[in-house]
Amino acid sequence: MKKVILVGLLLSVLSTSLAQNNMKGNNNFAIVLHGGAGTILKQNMTPELEKQYMDKMNEALQKGYDTLSKGGKSNDAVVVAIMVLEDSPLFNAGKGSVFTADGKNEMDASIMDGKTLKSGAVAGVRKIKNPITAAKCVLEKSEHVMMVGTGAEKFAKKCKCEMADSSYFFEEKRFIQLQKIKESEKTELDHGSSKPIDVEFNDKKFGTVGVVALDKEGNLAAGTSTGGMTNKKYGRVGDAPIIGAGTYANNKTCGVSCTGHGEYFIRAVVAYDVSALMEYKGYSVEKAANEVINEKLKKMGGEGGLIAMDAKGNITMPFNTPGMYRAFKKSDGTSGNFIYK
Amino acid sequence: MKKVILVGLLLSVLSTSLAQNNMKGNNNFAIVLHGGAGTILKQNMTPELEKQYMDKMNEALQKGYDTLSKGGKSNDAVVVAIMVLEDSPLFNAGKGSVFTADGKNEMDASIMDGKTLKSGAVAGVRKIKNPITAAKCVLEKSEHVMMVGTGAEKFAKKCKCEMADSSYFFEEKRFIQLQKIKESEKTELDHGSSKPIDVEFNDKKFGTVGVVALDKEGNLAAGTSTGGMTNKKYGRVGDAPIIGAGTYANNKTCGVSCTGHGEYFIRAVVAYDVSALMEYKGYSVEKAANEVINEKLKKMGGEGGLIAMDAKGNITMPFNTPGMYRAFKKSDGTSGNFIYK
Repeated sequence: MKKVILVGLLLSVLSTSLAQNNMKGNNNFAIVLHGGAGTILKQNMTPELEKQYMDKMNEALQKGYDTLSKGGKSNDAVVVAIMVLEDSPLFNAGKGSVFTADGKNEMDASIMDGKTLKSGAVAGVRKIKNPITAAKCVLEKSEHVMMVGTGAEKFAKKCKCEMADSSYFFEEKRFIQLQKIKESEKTELDHGSSKPIDVEFNDKKFGTVGVVALDKEGNLAAGTSTGGMTNKKYGRVGDAPIIGAGTYANNKTCGVSCTGHGEYFIRAVVAYDVSALMEYKGYSVEKAANEVINEKLKKMGGEGGLIAMDAKGNITMPFNTPGMYRAFKKSDGTSGNFIYK
Repeated sequence: MKKVILVGLLLSVLSTSLAQNNMKGNNNFAIVLHGGAGTILKQNMTPELEKQYMDKMNEALQKGYDTLSKGGKSNDAVVVAIMVLEDSPLFNAGKGSVFTADGKNEMDASIMDGKTLKSGAVAGVRKIKNPITAAKCVLEKSEHVMMVGTGAEKFAKKCKCEMADSSYFFEEKRFIQLQKIKESEKTELDHGSSKPIDVEFNDKKFGTVGVVALDKEGNLAAGTSTGGMTNKKYGRVGDAPIIGAGTYANNKTCGVSCTGHGEYFIRAVVAYDVSALMEYKGYSVEKAANEVINEKLKKMGGEGGLIAMDAKGNITMPFNTPGMYRAFKKSDGTSGNFIYK
C-alpha cells in the first residue's frame, strides 16, 4: 500500500512539474499563421508566385517570432505578424483587400487575448490601413468588443491608427477580379469555393489572414483580418470579426484563427467549438480542430480551415480545401511552411 | 442471460419511443420570451407600469403561441412575438430603441433556425421598423448570415421589410435619457449595469428582447432584437446580432436568447456555450444555462440572463441581475410571467 502511495505521489509530482514546464513552457514560445484556404493547386501555381507567398509568410512569421523572442506579448506578436500580411497585396486583407460591388474595400478584423479573454473587433471599415491595429485598440482602450463602419473608423483615428484613403487599397488586379465577377454576375463568397476560375483570380480572391501566438509567459492570443469577398453587397460581414466564429483564444484551452466560407464558420461557431471540445471532452487541440473542420463543418458543407495552438505550444492546421497558406515557428527549433495538402 | 437481453431490448425500445415522443413532442409546442435583464426592483416599480410590462409580454407570447398552435413554424413564431415587443415603447428594441450619442437609433437583431442551423442578423440599422424581420429575410433570402449598416437596410428594402424614418423611433423619454447620460458624461452599457439611476431611466435603458420557440414539428428557433445602449458611440455592436453570443438554436440541444452586458456575452460565447455543455457534457438545458449565467459569466463579472428551451420543451430562464422580464407558455397548459427574482 505504501509503495502504491509513494509511486502515486512521485507520478503526481512528476506530472505537475511536466505540466508546469509545458504551461509556462520553460519560456517556450511559438507562432503559427495562415494566409487563407481555398482551391489552391500546385498545377495552377508558378514557382515565382509560390516563392512570393512563402517569403511573405516567413517575413510575417519572423516578425512575430522576434517579438516573442524578446519577451513581447502574444497579442503584440499577433498584430505585427498580421500587419506584414495586411501590407502585402498577395493576401485578401489590408492593402490586398478585394473590392465590394460598389468598388470599395471593406475590411474586418478581430483579436482576442487568451489570458484576460478581452477581445476587439472592427467590421466594414474602409479607411484603416491595418484593421488589426484598430481591433487591438478596441481591445485595449474601449469597454466594447465590436465596432462597425464609420464609427469604428472614428475610434481608430482617436487611437492614432494609421489611416489610408481608397487609393492606397486600389490594386488593379483586384479591380479586374471585380469586373470579371460582375460580368459573370456571380456573387462568390470570400474563400472556400470549390469552383476555381483561374489561379491569379482564385487564390487571390479567397483570402483571410490569421495568427496565433504563445508568449514566454504562457499566454495565448489569436487574430484574424480579411478584405471580405469580391463583389460583396449589403454590408455583408463574415466570420473574421466575430469572436467565437473566426477568432478565439483562452489560455485554458487554445488560440484559433479561421479561414473559409465565413457563413458556415459563424453558424458552426467554429473557433469556440475547438475550445469547447478541449474543455468539455478533454480532446487534444489536434483532435478537436480536426473534428470541427473535417467532420462537423464538412457535414454542413462548409469549406475552409483553421490554425490552432494550445497553451503547451502544440500546433494544428487542418483544412478541408485543396490548399491553405500556412506556416509555423517554435522556440524548440521546429518550423515549416506549406501551401498544398 | 436471455432475461438480461430481453430487459435490455425492452428498455431500449421504451427509451427510443420516449425520446421520439419527446422530440416530436406529441405535437407539443412552447414559447418563452424575455424583455431584458437588469436592476429591476419591485420597490422602484409602480403597479401600473408593472401591468403594462406584463400585458405586453402576454400579448407577444400569445401571438407566438397562436402561430405555433396553428401549426406554424418556430421561426415564424419568434418573429411575430418579437415584433410585438419591438412595436412597444416599453422595451429597448424597435420603436423603443434608445438613442446613440449622435441622437440616432441604431438597432441590431438576429435569428437562428434549429433544424437547418441557418441564421440571419442585421447590425447598426436605423431605418427598419422591425429589425427582426430583416434578420429573418437574411436567413431566408441571402446566402449570408450578417449584414451591417446601410447595406443591411438596402437588403431589407429589397425584402419588402417595412421601413421607418427617424421620427418613428423618436421617443421623448428615450431622448431625455440620452440628455441625462450626456450630462453625467457616463457611457453606460446597454443593460446589466448594477448602478440604478432611476426606475424610468434604468429599466428602460437596459433592454433587449428575445424569444425561443418550439413548434409542433419539434423544431427550435431563437431570436433577439435590441436598440443597443444609450449614448452609444463608434458603431458599437453588442451580442444581440452575434450568432453564438446572443442567439443560438440547434434541434440537437436547445434554443437560446440572451440579454445583458453584451461585451461579456460575446467574450464568453454564451448562447453557444449552453448548447456545447449539453452536447459535450450531457447537461440538461437547466444545468447548462445555470452554469453559464451563474458560474462562468458571473466569475468574469458579466451581468445578465438568458432564456433557453430544449427540443423537449423544457424551459429555463436564469439571470444574475435583480430582475429580468420573462414569460413562457406551453401546450401542456403551463405558463407564467415574471419580473423579479
